[in-house]
Amino acid sequence: MNNPVHRLLNPRAIALVGASRNPDHFSYPLLEIVLRRGYKGAVYPVNPKADEILGLTCYPSVRDIPGEVDTAMIMTAKKFAAQAIEDCIARGVRGVVIMTAGFAEQGEEGRRQQAELVARAREAGVRIIGPNTLGFFSAPAHLDLIMSGFIREGDTALITQSGNLTQSITFPGAQRGLGFRYVVGLGNQADVQIPDLIRYFREDPGTKAIAVHIEGLQAGRAFMEEVRATTPVKPVIVVKSGRTESGARAAASHTASLAGDDAVYQAAFRQCGALTVDSIQNLISALLAFQQSRLPRGNRVCIMSEGGGDCALTADACVRRGLTVPALAPATREKLAAILPPNGATANPIDLAGWEGFAGATECALADESVDGVLLVGGFAGNFHISPRDFDREMEYVDRLCNLVSTHDKPVLIYSYTGYAPSRMTARLAAAGIPLFLDHHDAVQAMGALADYQRLREQIAERRFPADLPPPATDPGKQAPNGYLLEPEAKALLRPYGLPFPDERWVQSAAEAVAAAESIGYPVAMKIVSRDIVHKSEAGGVRIGLADAAAVRAAHDGILAAAKSYNPKARVQGLLIAGMAETGGEECIIGGLRDPVFGPVLMFGLGGIFVEVLKDVVFRVAPIDERDAETMMDDIAGRALLAGARGRPPLDRAALREALLNVSRLLCERPEIAELDINPVRLYANGLMALDARIRIQHENEEQP
Amino acid sequence: MNNPVHRLLNPRAIALVGASRNPDHFSYPLLEIVLRRGYKGAVYPVNPKADEILGLTCYPSVRDIPGEVDTAMIMTAKKFAAQAIEDCIARGVRGVVIMTAGFAEQGEEGRRQQAELVARAREAGVRIIGPNTLGFFSAPAHLDLIMSGFIREGDTALITQSGNLTQSITFPGAQRGLGFRYVVGLGNQADVQIPDLIRYFREDPGTKAIAVHIEGLQAGRAFMEEVRATTPVKPVIVVKSGRTESGARAAASHTASLAGDDAVYQAAFRQCGALTVDSIQNLISALLAFQQSRLPRGNRVCIMSEGGGDCALTADACVRRGLTVPALAPATREKLAAILPPNGATANPIDLAGWEGFAGATECALADESVDGVLLVGGFAGNFHISPRDFDREMEYVDRLCNLVSTHDKPVLIYSYTGYAPSRMTARLAAAGIPLFLDHHDAVQAMGALADYQRLREQIAERRFPADLPPPATDPGKQAPNGYLLEPEAKALLRPYGLPFPDERWVQSAAEAVAAAESIGYPVAMKIVSRDIVHKSEAGGVRIGLADAAAVRAAHDGILAAAKSYNPKARVQGLLIAGMAETGGEECIIGGLRDPVFGPVLMFGLGGIFVEVLKDVVFRVAPIDERDAETMMDDIAGRALLAGARGRPPLDRAALREALLNVSRLLCERPEIAELDINPVRLYANGLMALDARIRIQHENEEQP
Repeated sequence: MNNPVHRLLNPRAIALVGASRNPDHFSYPLLEIVLRRGYKGAVYPVNPKADEILGLTCYPSVRDIPGEVDTAMIMTAKKFAAQAIEDCIARGVRGVVIMTAGFAEQGEEGRRQQAELVARAREAGVRIIGPNTLGFFSAPAHLDLIMSGFIREGDTALITQSGNLTQSITFPGAQRGLGFRYVVGLGNQADVQIPDLIRYFREDPGTKAIAVHIEGLQAGRAFMEEVRATTPVKPVIVVKSGRTESGARAAASHTASLAGDDAVYQAAFRQCGALTVDSIQNLISALLAFQQSRLPRGNRVCIMSEGGGDCALTADACVRRGLTVPALAPATREKLAAILPPNGATANPIDLAGWEGFAGATECALADESVDGVLLVGGFAGNFHISPRDFDREMEYVDRLCNLVSTHDKPVLIYSYTGYAPSRMTARLAAAGIPLFLDHHDAVQAMGALADYQRLREQIAERRFPADLPPPATDPGKQAPNGYLLEPEAKALLRPYGLPFPDERWVQSAAEAVAAAESIGYPVAMKIVSRDIVHKSEAGGVRIGLADAAAVRAAHDGILAAAKSYNPKARVQGLLIAGMAETGGEECIIGGLRDPVFGPVLMFGLGGIFVEVLKDVVFRVAPIDERDAETMMDDIAGRALLAGARGRPPLDRAALREALLNVSRLLCERPEIAELDINPVRLYANGLMALDARIRIQHENEEQP
Repeated sequence: MNNPVHRLLNPRAIALVGASRNPDHFSYPLLEIVLRRGYKGAVYPVNPKADEILGLTCYPSVRDIPGEVDTAMIMTAKKFAAQAIEDCIARGVRGVVIMTAGFAEQGEEGRRQQAELVARAREAGVRIIGPNTLGFFSAPAHLDLIMSGFIREGDTALITQSGNLTQSITFPGAQRGLGFRYVVGLGNQADVQIPDLIRYFREDPGTKAIAVHIEGLQAGRAFMEEVRATTPVKPVIVVKSGRTESGARAAASHTASLAGDDAVYQAAFRQCGALTVDSIQNLISALLAFQQSRLPRGNRVCIMSEGGGDCALTADACVRRGLTVPALAPATREKLAAILPPNGATANPIDLAGWEGFAGATECALADESVDGVLLVGGFAGNFHISPRDFDREMEYVDRLCNLVSTHDKPVLIYSYTGYAPSRMTARLAAAGIPLFLDHHDAVQAMGALADYQRLREQIAERRFPADLPPPATDPGKQAPNGYLLEPEAKALLRPYGLPFPDERWVQSAAEAVAAAESIGYPVAMKIVSRDIVHKSEAGGVRIGLADAAAVRAAHDGILAAAKSYNPKARVQGLLIAGMAETGGEECIIGGLRDPVFGPVLMFGLGGIFVEVLKDVVFRVAPIDERDAETMMDDIAGRALLAGARGRPPLDRAALREALLNVSRLLCERPEIAELDINPVRLYANGLMALDARIRIQHENEEQP
């Protein structure tokens, strides 16, 4: 494999720079674990003050190491880190892990020092993991550089940005049977970043699933590209911290104030096919489920249990998780009736009325075309059995179940409290690749993750992705200055993108206003145009339904007076006279913003109370494709209004889809747009009309994607 | 204690009717466990075919037992159960547990047999638990009649309706340190029901918290009364199965179609102060938290961890759970800065940058007035420590922490993966009553449960409850027949309850219609009145804004023609002429229904899209008090509209509150009302106007509460 990360994570020899003879220094147990784990390559401790550590010859500098070194781990005090990198470069080391902290995470000075280190390393062709990282674990190399000692080998790859969270995942994971192929703490991501590792793990045939803990991304689009390429091959499961952190955006536009940090991240995850979970518990459950390689074809689950209580709780949890609990085929129910005791229930959930039926019932369920996966809950007692004889009898059924599962391609997941007491039974289930969960909820979340992945995999295959869409035009047109555009300026920017606005004139006097109104035709609306008044209605700067010249003149004077009283210093750039839009339809909002991580982002929602009271809006990273536009319309809570709720005709989804695609294109082609609200857009049964637009320009080349 | 349940659960002697000598019969290990657990009373096996079982003299019948028996457990085949009860009655046994199944849960015949058994027992003053139950566990009596063998003694009482779910709670609970004082499986609840046990456990000073698994209640109001009386003293934590089960109600009214089974249960739980959880995992977490007796005064949590990743994940989970993570006092931050390493963070969450700070930081946090509880996450390594010396050092901090917690009244909960590996450290924490959770999410759910309970306890104390409110009038007035009332009949029923309707006339001809319109004053609305047309608008049976006599005449003919074409067989009882309501304000819906478990239930929601598209409605069991009415208005998603969103004046909450209280009173006083929709109610800045009403009458005395 040519990926430079490969050699870094699977070195033929390693140097531990800053290793210590002092058993209280963290590097000492770290070295002990490296030796204990069975790493086959050479290990070179580096410390000018020691000759030998734990029986290994110690070298004063990396330069002095006699053999080739693929990966050096730098654990020195910060002041020695730069020299250590120079030594690595001089010795031809191509991979460096900087555990040392005190860089970008500690402010401006650290950021500068980090940038220098990285620049020097890049120049020399050296890749860096860190700084401020806990290191990595590589099962193929039997190399544990994260001082865990407890980590279990397996086929999951884990990428984190937090040392203690890595422990919160790998330790409980080990207790629950979750094994890792690679665990990499990226720390400050100064050089090797999350997308680099996703690409490497995608290409690694031994990696079955990729888990990523994200605190923040630096290259949002690169992340999306890599996940998008990975999802068809193996799942990428993301847990993101800081989900509820409120964004610190300026809030003059609806779009920006509704975005927060998390809404854009979640939109990006959805678009690229990343599977998201919201707790470590759910992450571990999902990863346990992916260890068994079977995927449900859909979300139809058959539940069975020894008794009704477990059945009902599990069915509830399934429905809440978006899984369905379908009726079983009549033939299946007949087969079940023949094997269950009389007080059993052959509906779904299946009440086995005792544990003796579970292997037979699983066989029936797996054979049913209407079932995509089986959840067995509370179905094993294992070590909790009172009598050894019951244990042995149940063990026969477990054998039968394991053999059965091995011949089917549908997933079978189990919740049983027997998981709390390891036994021959739990070992047999583990050997057969049947995951055992410790709660109904966990098992349901795991099945949900499998079903989600199956759906994401199908969806991503049909989707055109930002990278596949036409690149933005290179001529951004005439440059507007930073700040809010006037309404007519904003509309002029939008008009080439096919958005229909009412017939309008920008006028400078009452006489011009009347002339404009006569040319447009009464009734008209009138709005103030002022760079100092962003919220026009609030300032008394909007009048509608003006029916004749007298009304226009009165409105002209009224608006100017109101504006003066609202803000005596406001400079007024005139008035906008506009034809009245048709009534009816529904109000929508189409918005846009430039996100520091993901670049241009599109927003859509229903207007009025939906956006203002219910905050019922949806985001997508631009550009979007037709399918994204459709899912934007489908993802809002008020989606039924688009279909024509309350006896009204369906609204023009095709026109709305076009508008979303066009605004998406605008946002990509005009990266100087920092915020955009087209609000309201009035959507009719036929067509739509944009009634107002607000755009904030901010030229920030360094922020542009 | 005089509660008859007391003696049943704490018998001085027990009879095991149907005990067997066969070690494969379930009663054999059951008896073994009874003997092993250390029950101090006499144990009398009863079996006509055995002389002795496990060294105990066996009696042919309960009548033959020489000593007094307080509780008999009947484990016979069903055909012997009735005789066994007779024998118990003859011997003066006052408490019977019927494990035998095949009664009400198996259909009509079983229901009848069960009713006979209960009637016979009541007549004789015998209380029954079951039938179809797994029995009970009593820690005070050291009596284990549920064949668990693993159950841990403690101070939680558990009531269930499902045998296997009992195991799903008690076994994992035992692994996680949760102990039980009583565990009672109620099975079919033929005699002793959930409310009886809640009362008993409330009065039992040794019970600290009560957990209830509910599949279905028989006496909804009795349950509410008991929980309401218990919540000020100790928490009642409810997990209900069948939450997502869709109700099988007729759906001609919005209210009934929106109710489902679960919405009414959840409303009842909320009104009486029951704490609800949605999984066994969250139930166990909550119960572990209640084992430590400290409650947070509010929902402000201080989070601390060794590192930032755990901090952020936990803060997210807190905010999602409705907990806040407040800024710490400047003095606290100064104290923290003095004890944390330079790369620590003194904000909340506190990043300890290593585990050494947690005892000191906890001390700072507990002393801060802005903190109600402390969550320590990932803060202990315990057995996962690499070196025994680190373990010992950490153990010193754990001692310090335990001493600290014992002198404070704020709860301290811990998530640490060390919980997976029991050690001196976990034992020390358990001894100090500090619960240890296995995931961030669990610890947050537990803190949430504590904060919820504190809030519920405060709320329930201020609330007038159905039982405290005036009893329904005894004269239900003139009886309407079953079925839908005509709109003018429905309004006539509502008018005495103070709901304002537009001025209206019920007319029978075009001439009467015109006369009515002239008397009311134009413009008017006209609506069809027909018992065969429930959905008037759909039938073309509504016209509004009729401005003169000609329009009234045309509408009259048009409506009758439309009705005929909609339903040629519809009999028409005339037309309703009504004054037009003022425009403006917001549309609401006030509804009611009679629930088979809880009796009269009130519904409120905003009208139009809120009820029809978003299903944004809220239920309460009637009668409600002023505070219920206020929380109904506050619990809808569109609540901001009531406060005057989008620059409009606030709407008249006082008028709405009055209307809700009045409709609540109506529902209680007229139990023949099966369904009620007052829709729309137009709510203005001053007052409100009810524009339409639909009522379905169903006299079902046996269903009335």
